[in-house]
Amino acid sequence: MNINEFNQRRNELNRLMQENDAFFQQFGDLDDEVYSDGAIPKKYKELIGLAISVLSRCEDCVLYHIQNCITEGATKIELVEATKLGVIGGGSITYPTARFAFNMMKDMNIL
Amino acid sequence: MNINEFNQRRNELNRLMQENDAFFQQFGDLDDEVYSDGAIPKKYKELIGLAISVLSRCEDCVLYHIQNCITEGATKIELVEATKLGVIGGGSITYPTARFAFNMMKDMNIL
Amino acid sequence: MNINEFNQRRNELNRLMQENDAFFQQFGDLDDEVYSDGAIPKKYKELIGLAISVLSRCEDCVLYHIQNCITEGATKIELVEATKLGVIGGGSITYPTARFAFNMMKDMNIL
Amino acid sequence: MNINEFNQRRNELNRLMQENDAFFQQFGDLDDEVYSDGAIPKKYKELIGLAISVLSRCEDCVLYHIQNCITEGATKIELVEATKLGVIGGGSITYPTARFAFNMMKDMNIL
Amino acid sequence: MNINEFNQRRNELNRLMQENDAFFQQFGDLDDEVYSDGAIPKKYKELIGLAISVLSRCEDCVLYHIQNCITEGATKIELVEATKLGVIGGGSITYPTARFAFNMMKDMNIL
Amino acid sequence: MNINEFNQRRNELNRLMQENDAFFQQFGDLDDEVYSDGAIPKKYKELIGLAISVLSRCEDCVLYHIQNCITEGATKIELVEATKLGVIGGGSITYPTARFAFNMMKDMNIL
Repeated sequence: MNINEFNQRRNELNRLMQENDAFFQQFGDLDDEVYSDGAIPKKYKELIGLAISVLSRCEDCVLYHIQNCITEGATKIELVEATKLGVIGGGSITYPTARFAFNMMKDMNIL
Repeated sequence: MNINEFNQRRNELNRLMQENDAFFQQFGDLDDEVYSDGAIPKKYKELIGLAISVLSRCEDCVLYHIQNCITEGATKIELVEATKLGVIGGGSITYPTARFAFNMMKDMNIL
Repeated sequence: MNINEFNQRRNELNRLMQENDAFFQQFGDLDDEVYSDGAIPKKYKELIGLAISVLSRCEDCVLYHIQNCITEGATKIELVEATKLGVIGGGSITYPTARFAFNMMKDMNIL
Repeated sequence: MNINEFNQRRNELNRLMQENDAFFQQFGDLDDEVYSDGAIPKKYKELIGLAISVLSRCEDCVLYHIQNCITEGATKIELVEATKLGVIGGGSITYPTARFAFNMMKDMNIL
Repeated sequence: MNINEFNQRRNELNRLMQENDAFFQQFGDLDDEVYSDGAIPKKYKELIGLAISVLSRCEDCVLYHIQNCITEGATKIELVEATKLGVIGGGSITYPTARFAFNMMKDMNIL
Repeated sequence: MNINEFNQRRNELNRLMQENDAFFQQFGDLDDEVYSDGAIPKKYKELIGLAISVLSRCEDCVLYHIQNCITEGATKIELVEATKLGVIGGGSITYPTARFAFNMMKDMNIL
């Protein structure tokens, strides 16, 4: 998956959803708020997002949160640890998603 | 749910499993290792555990990780933020588990 | 499960959550809005809620949506059909939740 | 995804399954029966199917039920409302599937 | 959980469902057929059922399939191995269900 | 999906994960151990793996376990029966994964 194309497509479709119904703006705002800097620093929230994405086997979510983790200064080892937390929680059925996460990290020259 | 009884019962059954098959000792050790202090401090790993528990709607897991979060010095607001991350990720079907988390925090005099 | 006690406990814990963090008020409002009368009449939205609850195996959600379905004038047959849609979608692992739904309908003298 | 190719491929593989084992004919018949016109009109059953598909993050199911919704005369707003019911129920991990639903609706000139 | 009471309650509610809608008889028959002796002997199908029940975290399903496994002559070690297959597949969030399985096996004097 | 390419890519990414963190070697070893010949013969364990893969809607897992089933001498009918056990357990939302399984079996000249 090309990351720039993924991001562009994701943004376009989010916009399409928001143009058709205000709910998607409201839900998106609520999601942004929950992930904003708080008692838990944003970096750790994004690592939580990555662990959740692996556990729930959502590749698009993995790609989104890996990018945000990096923006927040997360290191390679922190990304790997968050991925492991998703795998131990969700078991071997999360392996394809963990492989996807590692493949994306390789493509982004993190590994 | 009485927390001491829950903990005692959980320990007894974990022991029963480990006595019957070494796998459960090995899996448990691997889980402990993944949750140990690392590049991500243990406190944040336990908060990740709480968010994962809410998202995957596992009450026993919620009760286990809330206690570990507190042991690691997590504050009330951090516990609430981790719960919110589980709810926004997993939607309204996680509400019963989030209610359980708040009820437990009230019983433990955190709220 | 006693329905009045369930409702009271549910309301108390929802209030506790909202008092501790505005997010839960906002998410709850968004949920109410999505379930309000629209192009799809509220009765059918509540039947969708019941089907989703059975599929996702959430007993608290089943009890909540059955009550709302009845308030909106849904008949016994409509409730049964929504339950079936959850079961065929989610398979035999939804049977315990479907049994719970029927048990609740019996206790409410719908069956 | 090209819709005609998807439909053709889906039909071919369903046939392959039914040719190999009568179970798949029986399960398919049961599924058809549950989705047939009843106390709940077929249009609303298909909207339930769409909401379930978004909640359970099944893209093939989304594409199947959107087409059936349209055949039954569902409007754009009804399709959007059913999608929202799936998203609020299943949270932000359903967003990729909701984006897929909107993308399909755009390709079918519904949006 | 008392096993006889569980079985009685399960049977009563299954009957209630079947009395209200023929679908539940048909789905139940299909489920029985899939689990009947075939190329895969019934004992191994019931062990598959146990592994699936642990993975999908369905306690009622665990209790149902453990009893069927025993009826089919499965040994303690086979029951433990099927449980392990569910746990490694579904991760630590399946532990509460695995504990439930071991607790039931202890109550049935298998362990 | 080309099976040789899938296998090669899967192996490469597993190696990448293991090179970056010993956890993935340990988890993989534990998974191999659980799936090894025991009181339940390896062939039946792989059929359990296939049923779990269909139920949890994991295409990569389906492709992995089908190959192992064949290596262990499982017949076409056993593969079909394991797939049916996944479908009846997990409902119509598993159909796309069951179609994938049949498509793979056709490509491998099993059907």
